Amino acid sequence: MTTEKFRGVFVPVLTPFKSDLTPDVDRFVAHCRWLLENGAHGLAPFGTTSEANSMSVEERMELLEAAIDRGIPAAKMMPGTGTCSIADSTQLTKHAVGLGCGGALMLPPFYYKGMTDEGLFASFSEVIQRVGSESLRVYLYHIPPQTNVPITLNLIEMLVKAYPDTVVGLKDSSGDWNNTESVLKSFPEFIVFPGSEGFLLQGLRAGGSGCITASGNVNPGDIRKVYDSWQTDRADDLQARISLARKTIQAYPLIPALKRIVAHFHDDPDWERVRPPMLDLNAEKSASLLADLKAIDWKLAPKLEAVA
Amino acid sequence: MTTEKFRGVFVPVLTPFKSDLTPDVDRFVAHCRWLLENGAHGLAPFGTTSEANSMSVEERMELLEAAIDRGIPAAKMMPGTGTCSIADSTQLTKHAVGLGCGGALMLPPFYYKGMTDEGLFASFSEVIQRVGSESLRVYLYHIPPQTNVPITLNLIEMLVKAYPDTVVGLKDSSGDWNNTESVLKSFPEFIVFPGSEGFLLQGLRAGGSGCITASGNVNPGDIRKVYDSWQTDRADDLQARISLARKTIQAYPLIPALKRIVAHFHDDPDWERVRPPMLDLNAEKSASLLADLKAIDWKLAPKLEAVA
Repeated sequence: MTTEKFRGVFVPVLTPFKSDLTPDVDRFVAHCRWLLENGAHGLAPFGTTSEANSMSVEERMELLEAAIDRGIPAAKMMPGTGTCSIADSTQLTKHAVGLGCGGALMLPPFYYKGMTDEGLFASFSEVIQRVGSESLRVYLYHIPPQTNVPITLNLIEMLVKAYPDTVVGLKDSSGDWNNTESVLKSFPEFIVFPGSEGFLLQGLRAGGSGCITASGNVNPGDIRKVYDSWQTDRADDLQARISLARKTIQAYPLIPALKRIVAHFHDDPDWERVRPPMLDLNAEKSASLLADLKAIDWKLAPKLEAVA
Repeated sequence: MTTEKFRGVFVPVLTPFKSDLTPDVDRFVAHCRWLLENGAHGLAPFGTTSEANSMSVEERMELLEAAIDRGIPAAKMMPGTGTCSIADSTQLTKHAVGLGCGGALMLPPFYYKGMTDEGLFASFSEVIQRVGSESLRVYLYHIPPQTNVPITLNLIEMLVKAYPDTVVGLKDSSGDWNNTESVLKSFPEFIVFPGSEGFLLQGLRAGGSGCITASGNVNPGDIRKVYDSWQTDRADDLQARISLARKTIQAYPLIPALKRIVAHFHDDPDWERVRPPMLDLNAEKSASLLADLKAIDWKLAPKLEAVA
């Protein structure tokens, strides 16, 4: 099997939970389908936005299997498979590759701080070798606000040199454009996804491959328009529109806010539930969020229209 | 079964790994036994020093079971059971309580940052309720250098109020004496363990209960002497001695350095192995560490002698 490199708008799929806080398979699969039908090129389930780090290895594997069993194309998925433990990361990555996933988005081991690039290289290297599959495509996940364990240019260089056909890209959730730009310049062949649509147009113009963005869970259509139109004269206006929506949403705790939006606009209150240590938005904040969205004339993902 | 509150010198047991990086059960159990015979009151396996966060849930449960099966008293153990996920923390904690462990040392969920005390309370509360055992004794694990998720006085207060018989103590690995002192003053009934023997005497004098310390893996005898003699006029000298040893060791990456010391003084090179993202000390650093220890006339855990 050949594994194509990813490009486009990818969504770290929100994970719905039942009242006992177990993952809600039905709502998860329905949401995956809705995202792909409404603008997403692909899915990056079990990312930060997915509350993946609040879930067990087994819960993640069950959800992934269920989605693929029910028709979500594995080739369009790059599940998060990086954990603190080589054993867990290997199990998750092997499982994803076995199911035919087009890639794996890998956090560095994030508990221990101040590790050397050599130590982080050894960690990724162990996982890659234990998975031992030519089909594996690793997208490194740089998200220092959560991990405090950066994926440096030096580490990327070591990994690309050792595993040129396997380590093919990076999600940059640093929120620091200078870092994204450095990666793009240093590794022109690398698939680089900014971790927010706020950098989508800027990224595409600099050689980026799209974005992997939390707010894609509610705004995939408009974000897709920027991707499809980036070389047209509409691009800046379309980017301004998605940046405004993002700014409005992230004035609130992002994951509870996104779930609140899904719950409200899909008229499905069960969607609101988060796993501790997160908490649902309270009534006041929920009302304020919805009012803010109304004020900018935002609605849930309008159907895709033909784009330039 | 009644569960006594812990006091004394507890050791976060180093985890030996085989050449394939799987946990080495034989060496682990032997080391547990050696620690209890050479000064440790109890063991806190699967802490930070244990590289527990580089291990899977299954690996941790297997090691704990093996140790107890082979005669390490469960009542003297407080395994680390706190993870990022309620599901995993519940499984580990239930398992430890089921085996008769005297306590569980619980990290907060440490991936997501900036969580509220209410959210962290909800996370601990879910685990406690899901375990649902009157035998459970939770020791909170405050280690902001690794987690960036502090256990605040406010959070302790919420937990103690809701679970007065369950949430009984805290390990303070902040390295900040002011914080330890605040906890001791605010919660006089609380069992407070500084996370380093550097604060052992100071802690005992302020109402602390001992310490849980990485270097207890190699220095349990001398640390025990401070605990046993703290009200005598030898106490300050004994404290100075263990503080000097600690300072000497932690001039190097702590976990690899401790494993190197065990490997050298037990004449068992296999002990040196760490799991990535950590790396073994290189030859130069190893030689330097051993020379530094020789310079302060330090040897591996002398046998306990009668103390005041």
